[in-house]
Amino acid sequence: MLVLIMSNTVHFKKVALIGVGLIGGSLALDMKQKGIADEVVGVGRTQKNLDTALGLGIVDSVTRDIAEGVKGADLVIVAVPVLKVASVIEAAVEHLADGCIITDVGSVKARLIEEVTPLLGPGISFVPAHPVAGTENSGASAALTGLFNGRNCIITPTDSTNPDALATITELWRAVGSNVVIMDPVLHDRILSAVSHLPHVIAYALVNTVAAAGKSTGEGGSDTDMLSYSAGGFRDFTRIASSSPEMWADICDMNAVAIVEMIEAFQTELDALKEAIETRNIESVKDEFSVAKSLRDELIKSG
Amino acid sequence: MLVLIMSNTVHFKKVALIGVGLIGGSLALDMKQKGIADEVVGVGRTQKNLDTALGLGIVDSVTRDIAEGVKGADLVIVAVPVLKVASVIEAAVEHLADGCIITDVGSVKARLIEEVTPLLGPGISFVPAHPVAGTENSGASAALTGLFNGRNCIITPTDSTNPDALATITELWRAVGSNVVIMDPVLHDRILSAVSHLPHVIAYALVNTVAAAGKSTGEGGSDTDMLSYSAGGFRDFTRIASSSPEMWADICDMNAVAIVEMIEAFQTELDALKEAIETRNIESVKDEFSVAKSLRDELIKSG
Repeated sequence: MLVLIMSNTVHFKKVALIGVGLIGGSLALDMKQKGIADEVVGVGRTQKNLDTALGLGIVDSVTRDIAEGVKGADLVIVAVPVLKVASVIEAAVEHLADGCIITDVGSVKARLIEEVTPLLGPGISFVPAHPVAGTENSGASAALTGLFNGRNCIITPTDSTNPDALATITELWRAVGSNVVIMDPVLHDRILSAVSHLPHVIAYALVNTVAAAGKSTGEGGSDTDMLSYSAGGFRDFTRIASSSPEMWADICDMNAVAIVEMIEAFQTELDALKEAIETRNIESVKDEFSVAKSLRDELIKSG
Repeated sequence: MLVLIMSNTVHFKKVALIGVGLIGGSLALDMKQKGIADEVVGVGRTQKNLDTALGLGIVDSVTRDIAEGVKGADLVIVAVPVLKVASVIEAAVEHLADGCIITDVGSVKARLIEEVTPLLGPGISFVPAHPVAGTENSGASAALTGLFNGRNCIITPTDSTNPDALATITELWRAVGSNVVIMDPVLHDRILSAVSHLPHVIAYALVNTVAAAGKSTGEGGSDTDMLSYSAGGFRDFTRIASSSPEMWADICDMNAVAIVEMIEAFQTELDALKEAIETRNIESVKDEFSVAKSLRDELIKSG
């Protein structure tokens, strides 16, 4: 792991942003505001979202035609759901100018790199990146300036990644305020499966468990709306269950191996706690809780 | 389930508050501010916390002697950790004036009622209550006015609960702004195991899973501080893991049967999701996520 520090001289003449959502839109806003891009073309499937992006000044022009959008671009940012990145790049690649850099913002890297690498022609570089930022909101209207400021952006080059392109994309993310971390794609996927993908799976499963537990538990066997008794803790805890089901199902597909492994590690942990509660081994329960509290409190202290 | 609506005429001459923490302290603040109590005596084990409470005007006097504190009280509020409620009532009961009402604020009700009922003498009423409010903070210094305003307070009487005492405690909680819900104690424990106790167990288990997953995953087999890569979602999701380990271990002890049952329901749900991810049955994953998102979004809309 290596943190690169460089001066901010990164600049592009024409940026094609494919997928003008929260992440792509926020990046475009910062790039325009900081003079990193002369021109940003928004490429998408839905005219309405493109019109919103144009109206908000996120992009300078819009098109639904990938070939037209990427023509003459020196940078293509692919900010579509992670399962669609490879097919978008496949559609774009033959229309790219020599020397063009492609980058992405997907939350899964290893399988994506496997899919994308064979598609690239000579003179075209791909630099896989993942800005660790995001909210449960989506679409161009959710885009914000400064979204990446102070956040980690993990870049996951391989042996075949062009070093100049890697340096350029590193500079780009540093210029919008991110802490750039260079990491192996498999380690990235393992870390994200733990700190992001597993919590999402758990949050969805928890909401469904609580809803199902309300069936036939009320007086006279009627349903109880258990969720209506939840307090602030439950609401915070399940906020991420309001995230896009499509996006998260795609992530589960793309990172299935690491996620399944992490679910199993969690199941082992939960099973041990259940056993301790069941046998009233309350000292052991308290010890487990204390360790978790210390770790969580440290996390908050470290910002 | 029944929501009682009454006018606010509840009044006590002397209230003994045993346990001056977040919940007890906040209730005392509201009772004094609204003129519901002429005098509140704070009873506790730690002089420092009692002095804090006195300094903040939460109570009018303090003592570490239960017998002295409850003498002549027309209301005793037991706001100590749920595992200690019965022993506190046992110590107090012989010193109580005839007609005194005891109430509590514990998050587990059925076993508590079993423990407390045989301790009560004639002329002493016990009304079990649970204000569904609370933060991860604790102690007198965490007390707030208005903490219960707009929140549910679940009161769980049994057949032997004195109806006048029940009406009085119902009025008390309504007077501080709570929505009072009368509920069977076993149903209460089941609902809370789902919306509160299970999420806490999961949050603690998740933090420990992620920390353990970081062992020997870095370059050269070194540890990776996975938690440092977590974004806002993970922090919100695990906020409740910063709650008091002692309090939550006690709750696991007191409500073990319902909590184990709810953990098992969650395990079934999670196992099904894991299976769907493992077999790349992504449509089924998406369906599960969509159901959860709809439920969660409704929860937020309903306030």
